[in-house]
Order: sequence, then C-alpha cells, then structure tokens
Amino acid sequence: MNKKGFASDNNSGIHPYILSAIEDANKSHAIAYGDDDFTQTAKQKFKQHFGNDAEVFFVFNGTAANVLSLKAATRQHNAVICSELAHINVDECGAPERFTGCKLLTCPAKNGKITVDEIAKHIHGTGFQHHVQPKVISISQPSELGTVYSVNEIKTIAQFARANSLLLHVDGARLANAAASLNVEFKEFTANAGVDVLSFGGTKNGMMYGEAVVFFNSDLSENFMYTRKQAMQLASKMRFIATQFIAYLNNGNCIETAKHSNRMAKLLEAKIKEIPQIKITQKVESNAVFALVPPEIYEDLQKEYFFYLWDEKNCEARWMCSFDTTEDDINKFVNLIKNLIKNSQI
Amino acid sequence: MNKKGFASDNNSGIHPYILSAIEDANKSHAIAYGDDDFTQTAKQKFKQHFGNDAEVFFVFNGTAANVLSLKAATRQHNAVICSELAHINVDECGAPERFTGCKLLTCPAKNGKITVDEIAKHIHGTGFQHHVQPKVISISQPSELGTVYSVNEIKTIAQFARANSLLLHVDGARLANAAASLNVEFKEFTANAGVDVLSFGGTKNGMMYGEAVVFFNSDLSENFMYTRKQAMQLASKMRFIATQFIAYLNNGNCIETAKHSNRMAKLLEAKIKEIPQIKITQKVESNAVFALVPPEIYEDLQKEYFFYLWDEKNCEARWMCSFDTTEDDINKFVNLIKNLIKNSQI
Amino acid sequence: MNKKGFASDNNSGIHPYILSAIEDANKSHAIAYGDDDFTQTAKQKFKQHFGNDAEVFFVFNGTAANVLSLKAATRQHNAVICSELAHINVDECGAPERFTGCKLLTCPAKNGKITVDEIAKHIHGTGFQHHVQPKVISISQPSELGTVYSVNEIKTIAQFARANSLLLHVDGARLANAAASLNVEFKEFTANAGVDVLSFGGTKNGMMYGEAVVFFNSDLSENFMYTRKQAMQLASKMRFIATQFIAYLNNGNCIETAKHSNRMAKLLEAKIKEIPQIKITQKVESNAVFALVPPEIYEDLQKEYFFYLWDEKNCEARWMCSFDTTEDDINKFVNLIKNLIKNSQI
Amino acid sequence: MNKKGFASDNNSGIHPYILSAIEDANKSHAIAYGDDDFTQTAKQKFKQHFGNDAEVFFVFNGTAANVLSLKAATRQHNAVICSELAHINVDECGAPERFTGCKLLTCPAKNGKITVDEIAKHIHGTGFQHHVQPKVISISQPSELGTVYSVNEIKTIAQFARANSLLLHVDGARLANAAASLNVEFKEFTANAGVDVLSFGGTKNGMMYGEAVVFFNSDLSENFMYTRKQAMQLASKMRFIATQFIAYLNNGNCIETAKHSNRMAKLLEAKIKEIPQIKITQKVESNAVFALVPPEIYEDLQKEYFFYLWDEKNCEARWMCSFDTTEDDINKFVNLIKNLIKNSQI
Repeated sequence: MNKKGFASDNNSGIHPYILSAIEDANKSHAIAYGDDDFTQTAKQKFKQHFGNDAEVFFVFNGTAANVLSLKAATRQHNAVICSELAHINVDECGAPERFTGCKLLTCPAKNGKITVDEIAKHIHGTGFQHHVQPKVISISQPSELGTVYSVNEIKTIAQFARANSLLLHVDGARLANAAASLNVEFKEFTANAGVDVLSFGGTKNGMMYGEAVVFFNSDLSENFMYTRKQAMQLASKMRFIATQFIAYLNNGNCIETAKHSNRMAKLLEAKIKEIPQIKITQKVESNAVFALVPPEIYEDLQKEYFFYLWDEKNCEARWMCSFDTTEDDINKFVNLIKNLIKNSQI
Repeated sequence: MNKKGFASDNNSGIHPYILSAIEDANKSHAIAYGDDDFTQTAKQKFKQHFGNDAEVFFVFNGTAANVLSLKAATRQHNAVICSELAHINVDECGAPERFTGCKLLTCPAKNGKITVDEIAKHIHGTGFQHHVQPKVISISQPSELGTVYSVNEIKTIAQFARANSLLLHVDGARLANAAASLNVEFKEFTANAGVDVLSFGGTKNGMMYGEAVVFFNSDLSENFMYTRKQAMQLASKMRFIATQFIAYLNNGNCIETAKHSNRMAKLLEAKIKEIPQIKITQKVESNAVFALVPPEIYEDLQKEYFFYLWDEKNCEARWMCSFDTTEDDINKFVNLIKNLIKNSQI
Repeated sequence: MNKKGFASDNNSGIHPYILSAIEDANKSHAIAYGDDDFTQTAKQKFKQHFGNDAEVFFVFNGTAANVLSLKAATRQHNAVICSELAHINVDECGAPERFTGCKLLTCPAKNGKITVDEIAKHIHGTGFQHHVQPKVISISQPSELGTVYSVNEIKTIAQFARANSLLLHVDGARLANAAASLNVEFKEFTANAGVDVLSFGGTKNGMMYGEAVVFFNSDLSENFMYTRKQAMQLASKMRFIATQFIAYLNNGNCIETAKHSNRMAKLLEAKIKEIPQIKITQKVESNAVFALVPPEIYEDLQKEYFFYLWDEKNCEARWMCSFDTTEDDINKFVNLIKNLIKNSQI
Repeated sequence: MNKKGFASDNNSGIHPYILSAIEDANKSHAIAYGDDDFTQTAKQKFKQHFGNDAEVFFVFNGTAANVLSLKAATRQHNAVICSELAHINVDECGAPERFTGCKLLTCPAKNGKITVDEIAKHIHGTGFQHHVQPKVISISQPSELGTVYSVNEIKTIAQFARANSLLLHVDGARLANAAASLNVEFKEFTANAGVDVLSFGGTKNGMMYGEAVVFFNSDLSENFMYTRKQAMQLASKMRFIATQFIAYLNNGNCIETAKHSNRMAKLLEAKIKEIPQIKITQKVESNAVFALVPPEIYEDLQKEYFFYLWDEKNCEARWMCSFDTTEDDINKFVNLIKNLIKNSQI
C-alpha cells in the first residue's frame, strides 16, 4: 500500500530538499565518524538555532536520541519522571530502562502534557537507599497527543526541576511542529527556557533518518561520544546525517514543512468537525488529529486508509498529517468518511 | 579534506546505483518500521543469495549488527570467542560486553584469522558455575587484516562449534569482498558452511547506511524484533535501508564493486612491492594493504593522504581501497611515496 | 536504640533455634559454594514442603531472590505485572529493572492484593515490537499491606497466567506468616496452586540471612546457577544458609514463630480497636497492623518507639510484630498510645 | 566429606571468636539496613585500621565487593586493567562486565602480580571514541598465586595510576594474610600507598560471610548506598556483618589467624620440598602452596584430600591452609603423599 494516508508522519518519504542535500554531500571522500566538514557545519547550524551552548551529537533515530539523552543525565539508581503516554514509556520496548537502568515514574496526562503538581508527587524518598532517586523530568514537545507546551509551561517545569535538583529533557521528535505552532524560535522554548538536553528529530518532517541529541548543560556531555559508540549509535558515514540537518535548519525549511502539516491538521479538524457523528478529542495544536470514530465505519475506513487506533476500547483514532499531505488528500479522506457514515445510517 | 585517500572504505560516499535506488523508493508513503513492500522484497532477495533459511533483520550499522547477532545467540553468563584483533573486541567501545553481558575470550591471530587449536583452549570449565560459559565463536570475513577464510576453513570452525555446542557468528562488514575474493556465492561460505548468524554490511562497499543481521538458525531469531527495538535499532523509514540492499544484491552489483576494490588493493600491493624500503605485512586477499612505512616519510605522507596506523610501534599502516579508488589514485599515491623515499635518502 | 519496637520484623535478631543450627554446622570443613551435605539436606527439606518438583537455590537476601526469580523467568524485552505497592516496584531501588532489563507494569492494589481484572488491562500489544511483552505476574504473599491471598485467589491468578502464556512469581519474604494465616501447607498455595517460581524468605521470621529461590517449573532453572553467580549471590560458606533453612523447615519451627507474630498482630489490633481515635486501615491477616495515627501524638510516640509511616500524608503507620514480640511489649506500646492521646486531649 | 583438607580456605568454618561476636550482637532489636550501633562501631574500627578517610560499606561476599568497587570507580565505557589470573577475570562468571559494562584488559602475570610495564601496554586510544577507556587498575593482594605485593610495588602501581588518570583497586579477599606476611599495618599498603578503593574480606580467614568495600577516595562513594541496594547487596540484619568485622579487627584477631595459616603454608612448603618428586611452583608468601603433583599419585591423593588443580595440563595443585589447619593435618597429608609416591615407584 503506497497510498498516502494518515497513519503516521513516519510513513512519508524524503523531502526533495533533503534528498538534494544528500546528493550534494556525496562528493568524493569525507572522514568517517564525524570528523568531516559537514558535521562541523551542522554543529554551527545548531548553535545558530539553539544558542551557543548547544552541543550536538547525531544518532540514528528518535528512540536512541531519547534513551541516550536520559543516559547522559542519570546514573543507574535514578528515576525519570514522564507522562504515562510518553513515547519513552510506551513505545520504546523498554529501551530506556534497559539502557539507563532507571525506573520510569509516570504522571497521568489527559491532554498529553504533565504538570508540576503531578510531577511533585514523585518527589519523595530522597536520600532513602531503598528508593530510586528521581533525576530527570522528560516531556514531549509536542506531546504524544499533538498538544503543545507553551513557553511558560516549559519554564515552569524547568524551574521546578532546578528547585528540586532535577534535569529537564525534551523529546522533540516533532519539535519543528511545536516551533511552528508556537511561532517562536527553537531556543526560546529549549535553551532559554531551562531545558538541559533535547532529542531533536526531523524524520517525521521530511528527513530520511538521523536524530540529534542537543545538550544545553555541558556537564552532561563529557563522555557522550563513548556512550554513543557503546550504544551502537555512531554512524560511519556521518556526513549524510549532518547534511540533512544543515538543510533542515536552513532558510526555515523545517519550519515551513511543519507549518504545512500543522495547517493540514487544522484543515482536517475543521472538516471533521462538520461531521456530528465524530468527536475530536484533543486540541489540534500540531500535526495530529485525535477523534472518536464510529465503530460502524471503522473497518471500511481502515480498508482504504490504514491508521492507528490510539485507544482501542473507545475506537479513538490518531490521524497524522505529513509534509506532503495535500488538501486533496484531506478532502478525499473526509468525503469517504462522510459516505461511510451515510451508508451506515448512524 | 575531501580528497580521496586510503584511510578507510568508510570514507567513500554512496555508489550512484545505491543513491538511485533510494530515489526510486522515495515515492509516496510506505508503512514505517518494516511493514512495507521494499522490506518484503529485500527479504526475498536475501533468501535468493543466502538460501531459504535466511531470515533477515535490518539495523543501522555494523556494530549493531554484530552486537545484536551475539545477543540473539547468548545469555548473559556466556562468553564469545574471537580474535584479539576482532572489531567486536577492539573497535566497538565495549558495546558487545555492555549489551550482551558476555565476556569476550580472545585468540591470537597473527594473520587475522583464528584457528580451532586456539579456540579449543577456551573450552574448559564447562558446567563450572564460577566461569563464563563459551557459547559463540565469532570470526570476521574478511578478517581485520584483509585476509579471507577459505570455505573449508569456515567449515572446520563450524564443525568444531557444533561438536562443542557452540554457535558460529560471522562479522561480514565486508562480506562482498570475501565473496569476490573466493569467487563463490554468499551461501557457500555462510549458510552451507554451518554459520548460524551473520552480520552483513554494505556501507564500506558503496551503501549509505544500514546493515543486516541474517539468521540461518531460526532458534536464534524468535524474539529478535523486540531485541532490535530495545537496542534502538529499529528504523522508522525502513524502506530506505531495504531498497539499498535490494540494489546491492541485484545483478551482482555488490560483487562487482568489491571486485574492483580488491583489484585496486592488488594493484597497490604490486606497486608497493617495487619499493624495497617498504614491506607488505599481510597477504592481500581483499581490499586492504598492510605495510611497514619508513618512519622517515611517515609524517609527510600523512600530510597528503590521511591514513591509520595499525601498529604505531612498528609504523605499520593500513591502506584501504574503495569502490571508487582508481588506478590513477594509486599511481599518484605510490609516486608520492617513491618521491618521499628518494628525498629522505633512506 | 536496642529496644524492641514495631518498626520492622527485620529489626529482630536471630531465633535461638537458628543460631543453634549454625553452631551445629560449624564443625570442621565443608566444600564451599553448595557442594556440601547441609545444602543437599536442605534441598530435600524443600521437596518435602513444596513438592518433589521444587528445585531450590540459596541467595543472600530477599531483593536478590525476587530479582533473580524474575530474571530466570524473563528475557529483557519482557514486562512484569505487579502491584503498585510491590516490594519489587517500590523498595528495591530499581534492582528488578536494572538486572532484568524488564519494565514493571503496575496494578492498583487498595488492600495490597491485585486481581485478574487489573492484570488483564496490561495484556495488549502482544506481538507489537514497540511494546514490552508481559511475561510474569508477581504477587506478594502476604501482601505488603499484611493481607493474605486465599488459595483460590492464587489459583485464579495462576489460571489467568497460564491462559495468557504468563508465569506466576510469588514474593514470599513472609511466606510462613501466610501459611500460618491460611493454616495450609506451603505446597497448597505454591506448587499445587500453579506458582512457577517463589522467593522464600525467613529473615523476617527469625533467620539471620539467606533466602531461597524455589522453582516449580524446571524450564526456568536451567542456567540459574550461572545467573546467581553472575548476580554476586553465590555464598562461599553456603552450609550456613542451608543449615538455617533446615532448621527453619524442621518440626514446624517457622510456622510456630509465624503463628506467634500473627497472633501478636491480632492482639495489637484488638487493643488498638479499643481506642476510638485510631483507625485500623487494613485487615490484619498476618503480622502487620496498619493504622492512622493522630498527628498530635505521632512525634512523641516515635520518640519511644521508632516505626515507619506507610503513608506520610495520612499519617498511616505500619506496625510489624516479630517472633519475639511479647504481650507485654504490646501492652506497653498501647498504654503509651493511650496516655499520649489522653494528654493531647484529642 | 567433612574432613579438613587443603582445597580452599572457604571450606573452613566460623572461627569461635567470630561466632561469639554474633551471639553477642543477638540481643533484642536493632534497626535494619545499617542504621544500628554495631555498624557505626564497625565503621570507626575501619578508620582506626585504614585511616580516617576510610569510608566503609558492607556487602555479602567478595565478588560483590569487587564488582561494586569497580562500578563505583567507572562509567560503562571504561575498562579495568588486571591480571589474566585475577579473580575478577576468571572466577566471577562475568559479573564485573555484566554489572559495570566495562571490558577487562588483562596482563600476563607469571607470579600472580602485574607490573607497570604490562599495564602500560593498555594505555592507548585515549580519547578515541571507538575504544574503551581504561580507568581502573585492579590488583589482588595477596595475588591469586599466593604471592604478596610489597608496599613499594603497590606505591609504584599507584603512582603510575595517578600519572595516567587511573584509579587503583585492591581485591583484598585475603588482605589479612598479606598484612601478616608484610608485617605492616593495613593502612601502610592501602590508604597510604595510594589505593582508591579496597575489597576487604574475612570469610577465608574465619568469618561467616560479609565483605567490606572501603573507599579512600570520597569521590567514588557519593552514590554508593544506592548502587549497593540496586546490586542486591544491602543486608537487612546488617549488625551481624558489622559485629563480625568489629571482632575481626579487634586485638589483632585477624592478623593472628592469618599468621597461623601463613605459617602452616610455610610448613607445608618445607615438608613438600623434602620430596624430590614434587616441585613447588610459586613463592609461598601467604597461605597458598602451588605444586606440580606427579600424575601417578594424583587420583589416590584426591580420594583422601579433595583439592583443586590450578593448571590441569601440568597437574599443578593449589593447596590452601586455613585458620584451623594444624601441624598434624600437614604431617598426615605429607605422609600420605610420601607413601603414595613410594608405592607408585616414581
């Protein structure tokens, strides 16, 4: 099935400007493992966008960026506080626990975002040798439900972290969508907001592969190059990750594509709202739309457009828009839904 | 420094036919994480070349392929027997020990290859609870010194493994170079020779990234999909690894490029042998040439052509040829060496 | 502070019959690491009490018995389902995650016990590579709140486990107290009820140190001797753990002491119930009493009798009775409480 | 077989003064997990013998003391340099690699001791991300061959460690035997010689169980209480380990017993030397005697006195003397050997 759908922004391909950057980097030889000019340029590019303290290391994928960020920030008796819906908690097959040794302590997160009140409930047993010791708060921006933390919300969590000797990690697999949604620069809601370490991804927004671990706290990065290698995340032909990120951060490229997919999600939301039989369940603040699909049409809809059920029990679907989603894609999808509903006489 | 040199076949770029395959796969959407048509086709391709029992899983790089192969074949109290020069022993920053929990037991390997006699010395303490229990023999084909195990040498090791309840892993980061050198099909010196699990790489031979773990022993692969994910090695846009491997295995592509780099190595060897001040230290059977460089010219040579010293004490250099190494590259390199020697009046 | 209190049954010393058994074993030499006669005799003793399938391995303490039981039953991508109050979840500083690699999935447990309904909520995502795969249900008998699973409750959980390809682990740090409470033999609510692996402890009931991992499912124990050694849990002078367990299981010794501490807890409960200002919060079914202490007397009471707050927010105390708790101890404690309440005019 | 032999000093029982100390500590209640008076007193005792910087933590056994010492001194990408014969390398079933993540780099050690020359060969690749980074040198005092490092030898290794940013660990499972042999105080060849962390054992010298991790470098101990708990090494009834160590360090008790077993080893050596058919292979500097046993008598000797072959190929036996070995034991053993040799007419 090569048809464009709304299953995942991971199902989209490579944006042409990314592919073009790869082709450009494919000239002659370059020293492997990151000692090449592309990697140096990419690092500067990150400093431009994330501030001069930003120290960046490339890895292969988002799970690795998350797990290695957490590893750099913890020792094995620590704990990481996160949303119960967090990708690190649900969708990484236990990689965080396996590689860091840490326990994940979860907060309920109805709208995808966690709050200081819920985080605070895990701050106890400090200095008690029988208990894991919380060390990191990890939030996803945007959240797994497509909602976006405001700059102030992040600052509030960061202040709480500082006050409690905790560090703040952001899973930014779709950070460009958050930036596009907030309409502020990356550094405003990362470095300047008190974030210590960031997973910065682009694969869901037109890159081919590769993710960045960005440290704003140099205490954490001291031995990171060994950690990365030992974690099997050191790319030999590093230039091809670097060149993608250079292009991604160039000329507002990534923001533009993120704005597009965000806009498509708003369009999808608007059109779905016209259908009384379907209820949108989350605020649409990035490129995701969550909706309760009538079970009567679910099967037929899946036949044409594969997508994931976020909540099987309630038949709640997650529809993701991509950089290459078009208005036409949305119209056809919504029309099909309307027809299926009509035919099923719900 | 973008100049072509002989430092590493990892310094070369993407072969045009590989890049072309990536472009071809970049059409519309494809289900992420391996449930796509490219991945299915690639799996069939592997069965063609490695026999019907071959079950293949893609990961990001060679270290991961090695470590996850070993993980699948061991429990944490086991040990892995390998050459003291093995990539897993020397160049993976302890990733095998870290991720498998196993100890590596090493054999001396003057020519890069290990023998049953040396392996056998590690077979003792079986059933003794204080000792790690050897479970896997791991060999590199070609070896880290560029030498190639004959089909019979592999069969002998495999028989020893069977007789001692051990499994056989092959690190095939440059397997195409071995196949080109032996002039036999892949399956002849893997599946049919008694290998249990193989790391099959292409990045050093024109691929961009991606490596395959190939199981010939289905007992080992049962839970591998979880192991891969937990090891942070599940690519979201898997089709772009799959499409590279399809092209790599198509029409003898990978053999052709490997034959070329092997031939360039033989040419380099031949020309170096004309220089009495330089001694070739290993048989040239794949794309590597090892030679003792006169210390008097070392520094000046490095200025023009960066390369690695394999043995610092003896000033022994490793020169790797790539798919894009040309006769002209070799002539220029050898001429420089000759001039430097002349000038230094050694 | 050497005064007897109600803080923990771990604060009590060695029961005289245990010390006597240690003295008896201290004759001449015995082969180290478990190849001695005491260990053989102890193993037979376990078969007597737990059935012929019981295969026993000694370790140093309860955390080790739990963690190694779980390790034997899982691979690293698995998950363990347990109560949110479980010792393995709360009081082992993350050792289960660290050593097994597994995630713990928790069920709410108001009365300390978990139910099939709650367990079932974690059974999803089977075969989905992004999710950890549940493999073990772990229950504590008695629970951390002193309540005891009936034989039928355990059978129900075991049947659910079988039906869902899960294994059942029991944390029996205080198993003798459960046996005393249920008034049935050990095997009735372990081997015969469908338990796969058991942590069997005696330290809270008069032993000095040492805990047993008891397998009822021989698939799990195959490599356990290596796992134990690698986990740093192989005692050199094993005979001194074995001799304690022989004595512990002899002539109903452990049941007798457990009956005593259970009876003391019932006595404490009865006397506390006479005090209207204090509310007992859990059924008293073993040797623990949980009660809401008036904050007004809390500090003064702690000065005389150190004990742990189970729930700081509600000032809920946990009072444990030991094999050496006397009626007099209880009378004095309750009288003090009464006096403090009177003086504070609550 | 309860007969006293020469297989292992672990086969001996509990020295009466140790058992007596246990009985003394078995009065009423004591707070569990180390918050008791015995543990406080024991800590002071260690400061007396090892200097005021000595910070001590008790664990269950020697493997744990070694592994946790190394864990405290390393991060997972580090390596530990040790003798190829080191207990950590050979006899701990891979626990060091498993728990620390580190690779062990071994030095040949003909007489059991390693030298700066051999250690130095592993110091390369510093800062090279592909290679593990050496961080700790670990030596055994006495060595596994019963030889003893002089104070100066330890200082030399410590100076090398400092000069190369390495730490020095001592496996002191039999440290009292070394102190007795050197006839100097503990602190002279530990704290004052530049050791960073020490495993201090007594079980092979009359204790029942328990081992101490002693830090002389407070940077290493910061989080150790969590590491110990997470490693399943926190004893609940800690007072019974503490009381043993108090007695062990009291009035020269441990030195006296060590002197005795050392003396018995010298006696055994002297008597064996009278037998021309047997060759002593190592200097006898503590309580071990290594000797080549004529294969003709090996089997018959084993029937009467079980012992371990250190080197099967050469029929080299290790005979250990214990605190309870008597002259009579030695005479009988040597007489049997003489008779067996006579009868076999070698």
